[in-house]
Amino acid sequence: MPELRKDPIINRWVIISTERGKRPVFFGEETPPPKAGMCPLCPGNENMTPPELYAVRPDFSPPNSSNWTLRVVPNKFPALRIEGNLNKEGIGMYDRMNGIGAHEIVVETPLHGQTLSGMSVHDIQNVFMAYRERTIDLEKDKRFKYVMVFKNYGSVAGASLDHSHSQLIALPIVPRRVTEEINGGLAYYRYKDRCIFCDIIAEEKEYNVRVVIENENFIALSPYASRFPFEIWILPKKHEPYFALHEKVDNYYDISEILQHILKKYDKVLNSPPYNFMIHTAPFGNGEIQHYHWHMEIIPRLTKMAGFEWGTGFYINPTPPEEATTYLKETSI
Amino acid sequence: MPELRKDPIINRWVIISTERGKRPVFFGEETPPPKAGMCPLCPGNENMTPPELYAVRPDFSPPNSSNWTLRVVPNKFPALRIEGNLNKEGIGMYDRMNGIGAHEIVVETPLHGQTLSGMSVHDIQNVFMAYRERTIDLEKDKRFKYVMVFKNYGSVAGASLDHSHSQLIALPIVPRRVTEEINGGLAYYRYKDRCIFCDIIAEEKEYNVRVVIENENFIALSPYASRFPFEIWILPKKHEPYFALHEKVDNYYDISEILQHILKKYDKVLNSPPYNFMIHTAPFGNGEIQHYHWHMEIIPRLTKMAGFEWGTGFYINPTPPEEATTYLKETSI
Repeated sequence: MPELRKDPIINRWVIISTERGKRPVFFGEETPPPKAGMCPLCPGNENMTPPELYAVRPDFSPPNSSNWTLRVVPNKFPALRIEGNLNKEGIGMYDRMNGIGAHEIVVETPLHGQTLSGMSVHDIQNVFMAYRERTIDLEKDKRFKYVMVFKNYGSVAGASLDHSHSQLIALPIVPRRVTEEINGGLAYYRYKDRCIFCDIIAEEKEYNVRVVIENENFIALSPYASRFPFEIWILPKKHEPYFALHEKVDNYYDISEILQHILKKYDKVLNSPPYNFMIHTAPFGNGEIQHYHWHMEIIPRLTKMAGFEWGTGFYINPTPPEEATTYLKETSI
Repeated sequence: MPELRKDPIINRWVIISTERGKRPVFFGEETPPPKAGMCPLCPGNENMTPPELYAVRPDFSPPNSSNWTLRVVPNKFPALRIEGNLNKEGIGMYDRMNGIGAHEIVVETPLHGQTLSGMSVHDIQNVFMAYRERTIDLEKDKRFKYVMVFKNYGSVAGASLDHSHSQLIALPIVPRRVTEEINGGLAYYRYKDRCIFCDIIAEEKEYNVRVVIENENFIALSPYASRFPFEIWILPKKHEPYFALHEKVDNYYDISEILQHILKKYDKVLNSPPYNFMIHTAPFGNGEIQHYHWHMEIIPRLTKMAGFEWGTGFYINPTPPEEATTYLKETSI
C-alpha cells in the first residue's frame, strides 16, 4: 500500500510509492516501448488493462470489446490504491495516511500513432467529456477531496506509454498548488470583491500582448509571470469555479477548439515538443468555493529544472511571454 | 535587463531573462561542450572569464594568473544583473522589478575532469569557505535580501559546463521556498517553543532508520517525506540559523567530510548520478530569524517531473527513504 507523508516543515505531502519500489539499479533504465501489437492501450488488447470505467462506443458495443473511440481504465500500476478506508495517523512528530486514491487512464484515441493535436475538435471534446464524467463519478466517493486531470506527452514530460492518453488521480487531500491558488484568489476577492482570474482576463484583453487566441467561451493566454517558455493557460471567459460543471455551456466545444489550436501551434513552432497539461478546479466536498476560476495550464518541456529552481521555488524563463505570444500568433497552421 | 515578475495569484516570482532570449528554434539544441583546451574554467584561460572575485592561491600568485586551486568569477551569462538600482513598479494589476542581482561561478578545482566527489575533504572545505566569503561579501549590498548557493552536476541536472563548479545567485527578494520553511518553522516554534529542525534531528537519531551518517558537528539523513529517491539533507547538529556564520565551529570541515561521503555513496549506489544541491539559510537584512536552522539539500536526478507533480505540487517518490538509507549505508566506498 502506498503511503502519504507530510513534510513537517512546509506541510507538503509526498506519495511514497512502495509498491512501485524502484531499486537503485533500475534508475536510468528507460522502460522499452511495447512491441508491435502489444500496446496495452490498443484496440484488441482490452484484456491487458483492468475492466473499463467509461467508454465512447458509437455502435453501442459491449464494454471491453474492441470497437471504441475512447476508453477510461484504471491504471494497472496506480500511484494510489482505491481499496480500504482512509487512515490518518501520527508517527512520532510526523503525519501520514495510507495511500487511498484512484488513478485512471483516459485512452484518447484507438489509433496508436495519433496525437491529441492530430485529433478532430469533436474527438477532443469527447476527451473533456470523459474527464467530466469520471470526475463527477469519483466525487461521489467521500474519501476523495480532489481529482487532478493531467496529461504527459513525450518521454521527457514523463509519459511511459506512446499511445495517446491522459490521466486522472483522485486524492484524499487538496493539493498544495491548488490550495495556494484558492488562498491567493481569496485574498484578492476579499480586498477587491472580484475574481482575480476574471480581472486577469479583462486586463489581458485590454493590453492584448499575451492573448494567443480566444473564441466565444474560452481564452488562451501566455501568463504575465510564465514559469516556462511558451506556457499557456486556457480559461473560461465566464466565471466558473468547477471544471466538471461546465457542461451546461457548450459541452467543452470551445476549449477543445482552442486546445487543438495551441497544440498545432506548438507542433509547428516548437517542433512537436513534449508537454504537460493539467486542469485546476475548485475542490468539491469542502463547502462552495465560488471565488475560484477553473482553468487549464499547458507547459511545453523545453528547459531543465536545476538547483536554483529547486532551491528557491523561483523560475528562470528565457522567453518573455509577449515574445512567445508573437511567435505563436505569427505562425500559420 | 532581465525582469522579475510576480504571479498575481500565488505571489510566485519569475525571472524573465530577456537577454538570454531563447528563440523557439534554439530549444532542444544542447550547447556543445567546449573544445579541448577551450574550457573557460580551466587554468590558462582566465581571460575567458570576467576578473575573479575570490580565489585560493597557495603560492600567493596574483589575481587572474593561472596558479589557483579554487576561483570565483562573475557568470558571463548572468540570470540577474549587478548594475543599477532596484526599481519596483506596478504594470496595471501586475508587479515587476528590474532584475538586479549577482550571479557567480565557484570553480571548485583546476582539474578539468575532477568531480566534487573525487576531491579531498580539505579541498571541499575550501569550496564551503568560498561560499561563506562570497555570501558575506554579497550581504553588504543592501539591494540583496538572499544569497542562494547551489550546484548542478551533470547535463540532466542543468549543468551547461563540464568543469566542476557551483553557483551563487544574490536576489532582491527572499525566495518562496525559503520563506515557506521560515514560516513553517515559525509556526512550530510558536507552538512548541523549539526549533523544528532540532526536533527532527532528535527524532531521527532516536528512530535511527533514516540517518545515513553523522559526525561531531553534522548529520545527514533521508527526510521522512523525501520528494525524490535518495534525497538527503545535511544539517548542523547545533542550532544555527545562518550558513555563513558557521565558521566559528569547525570551518565546515565536518560538512565537507559528510558531503564527500554522500557523493561517493551516490557514485557507487546510483552510478554517478546527475544531482543538484542547494543551501538554505536564514536571510539577512530583515531582522534576526533565530528559529531557522540552515541546511543543505541534495537531490539526485533519477525521476522525471510530470503533469501530476506540476499540477499538484505533490511528489511521487518510488523509493521509501528508509530503503534509500539502507542501500546507502550497506554499500561500502
